[in-house]
Amino acid sequence: MLVRQGDGLFTDLYELTMAASYHQCGLDTPATFDLFVRSLPSTRRFLLACGVEPAVAFLEELHFEPSALRYLDSLGLFDPSFLDRLSELRFTGEVWAVPEGEAAFACEPLLRVTAPLVEAQVVETALLNLMAHSTMVASKAARVALACGDRRFVDFSPRRDHGPDAALLGARAAFVGGAAGTSLVAAGSAFGLPVNGTMAHSYVTRFASEREAFLAFARSFPDACTLLIDTYDTERAARLVVEVARELAPEGATVGAVRIDSGDLGPASQSVRAILDEGGLDGVRIVVSGDLDEHRIAALLESGAPIDAFGVGTQLGTSADAPSLGAVYKLVEDVDGPKAKRSAGKASLPGCKQVWRVRGEDGRYARDVLALASESVAGGEPVLERVMAGGERCQPAPALPEVQERGRATLAALPDELRSLEPGGQAYPVETSGPLATLAEQVWARHA
Amino acid sequence: MLVRQGDGLFTDLYELTMAASYHQCGLDTPATFDLFVRSLPSTRRFLLACGVEPAVAFLEELHFEPSALRYLDSLGLFDPSFLDRLSELRFTGEVWAVPEGEAAFACEPLLRVTAPLVEAQVVETALLNLMAHSTMVASKAARVALACGDRRFVDFSPRRDHGPDAALLGARAAFVGGAAGTSLVAAGSAFGLPVNGTMAHSYVTRFASEREAFLAFARSFPDACTLLIDTYDTERAARLVVEVARELAPEGATVGAVRIDSGDLGPASQSVRAILDEGGLDGVRIVVSGDLDEHRIAALLESGAPIDAFGVGTQLGTSADAPSLGAVYKLVEDVDGPKAKRSAGKASLPGCKQVWRVRGEDGRYARDVLALASESVAGGEPVLERVMAGGERCQPAPALPEVQERGRATLAALPDELRSLEPGGQAYPVETSGPLATLAEQVWARHA
Repeated sequence: MLVRQGDGLFTDLYELTMAASYHQCGLDTPATFDLFVRSLPSTRRFLLACGVEPAVAFLEELHFEPSALRYLDSLGLFDPSFLDRLSELRFTGEVWAVPEGEAAFACEPLLRVTAPLVEAQVVETALLNLMAHSTMVASKAARVALACGDRRFVDFSPRRDHGPDAALLGARAAFVGGAAGTSLVAAGSAFGLPVNGTMAHSYVTRFASEREAFLAFARSFPDACTLLIDTYDTERAARLVVEVARELAPEGATVGAVRIDSGDLGPASQSVRAILDEGGLDGVRIVVSGDLDEHRIAALLESGAPIDAFGVGTQLGTSADAPSLGAVYKLVEDVDGPKAKRSAGKASLPGCKQVWRVRGEDGRYARDVLALASESVAGGEPVLERVMAGGERCQPAPALPEVQERGRATLAALPDELRSLEPGGQAYPVETSGPLATLAEQVWARHA
Repeated sequence: MLVRQGDGLFTDLYELTMAASYHQCGLDTPATFDLFVRSLPSTRRFLLACGVEPAVAFLEELHFEPSALRYLDSLGLFDPSFLDRLSELRFTGEVWAVPEGEAAFACEPLLRVTAPLVEAQVVETALLNLMAHSTMVASKAARVALACGDRRFVDFSPRRDHGPDAALLGARAAFVGGAAGTSLVAAGSAFGLPVNGTMAHSYVTRFASEREAFLAFARSFPDACTLLIDTYDTERAARLVVEVARELAPEGATVGAVRIDSGDLGPASQSVRAILDEGGLDGVRIVVSGDLDEHRIAALLESGAPIDAFGVGTQLGTSADAPSLGAVYKLVEDVDGPKAKRSAGKASLPGCKQVWRVRGEDGRYARDVLALASESVAGGEPVLERVMAGGERCQPAPALPEVQERGRATLAALPDELRSLEPGGQAYPVETSGPLATLAEQVWARHA
């Protein structure tokens, strides 16, 4: 909303001070960075990669406006030669990525970026921000999808998300993770996502009676509208829906669903289902919402609650049990060879890498091997795909329904233990190849 | 970044379906909504209001582009008369707000919006999203400020924030809550915030040795640069800083600070301080970062760690212990009089309101009274100020340093118990005035 697409100023100051020094020292030569998550949050068994398309879109548009250069000049930190470099800067590098909708695990690169050092450096902040947020939401959505089974869920989070971009990109990521649609109209328009939504409690209170409100709304949207029934008394409203549906039938207006947004949703949905069925409305679906997450949805469905669809807001969009992923962006190779840091508890693996995924006899994912890009792992499939070369996108962005389908296939291919919503358990095995392990020892030893 | 300022599509679909029905039913008449937080997160004792300026900026720019209208038309839900209304829609209403940097508590309106119903309705999603996010971050920043006391802290969160807007608006909100600056260059440019930042570990690994990296950086930024000293071995690097500072002195280049980003920061800062002091660098400051929050900062300072400044990232920007505020937007009055809903556990208070803040004899905040706008509370100061009238801003936006100063004064005026970082304890007293309580009983009784 406020940051323009590809705005070079969407970066931490230290990216620019480092880049300025590289430029001055003659080190603006090709370098490779890995973007990865060092360890999964304790509440996550896997990540569902997402954010590649927003990241590529940022890289395609990367530039510094004249006003941005004037601002940087005003800081008194940068010399004219560096500002000239920035004025012409475009991203000219190569990017490999885990495809959106594919699983990823700790220490596996989600992105691998190779570009002249100044370019590769100034995009760190944007790439981390975009990749981590979308992957966080898609990973949460995948858990909600696992809880929902064959029921649908819709992203209701925009009002709780952290700013407009979070809502827009979050709706996209939720769809990748399995949401049937979103309440956010801007996301429908921008990404072609299905949009959902009907009425709020304020609509009901605006009318002299709930009955008048239901009739007015059904007449405005005569084709299978959804009525919100918990503004005053849920069961009384359910009986009203039966009356209203009868009254509307001659006009051709129908009620498609009711929504319950408060109270004890299990018992409430049971009694509402009974009232609707008795009233001949067994085709009217029940949608529930209100502080839902994957655990509450699983408990509701396990209790046999007759719920057809879920609206999931806050917990989906803010991923409250893992509200950040701690992604990092590390230099792994430059013209002088492989590189790595050795900070306490934060060592990283050097070199250009590929992730290989090995399936078991049942076709499910069995283990990954983190290897050098020059290696090949027998029986495995390479996970990272090249998405940009020479600063240009290698292929058109896949359609989002295809990406969602890939997410669905990924969830089906996960070992049963990883599909559990509970924390703990055996981590998915990610091995380091022999050559990569040897290289890491060599690089670390240099600074021991 | 992707949502344009004032884009009418930045709204939940149900805002538009309700608005369409209001338009059709002739109910597009003035109505008043309260935006408030129903209950504080268990980890918060107060909120620091923020987000008013971004919200007002959205309302000033509110419009539907021709492309937006074509998209809405394509949904097949809306009749031409409503789309015509949207094509000319601007926000023409009145807005009252808790000033940014002022304290707010549960059930107190942060915003009160009065406008023709269609306008007031379609802005609900944007206002909730913008107000709740900024207030969430400012409230977290206020806690960090309380922990820091006379030390400085800087917002390092952009890479961990939920999308570009979250980083940009979050940097602003962190400043309102007390941050000395931000790492985000775009926020420096957009809001005039001080920007901070120096180098990453990758900078150090790019050079053949840490010594070369330190020399190169200090020569690029000779005026009191900050060197990152935990890439390989923190104490060894601190001794290197002493050597490098000596070597650079004849050139006029100085080291201003060192940063430690990993390991046990308390003991590390102690030994680094000793090494620097022994080396004659007692003027070189120590900055630390790495998964800090208000509790870790308080513990470090309590242990006597000689730390001068803190970089606070993830926990600040994502407010991980309270990653959303659950703000709501409720119809409280329309042309037919005061309104309220009565949902289980979610009843709301009807009528146009004002919040009165009453100070004790010590000048600190003692209690609030939530009253009807028509009342006056003896000895209290009204908190809500009119910020828009007739769709126009009433006064220019206050300068951010003034807003930060208001935040500082607010923290100083809070009762000691509310300044505690620990959860629990006595809640700040918010009373309901007699007339408001009576009105609520009357309105609720209508639907009992």
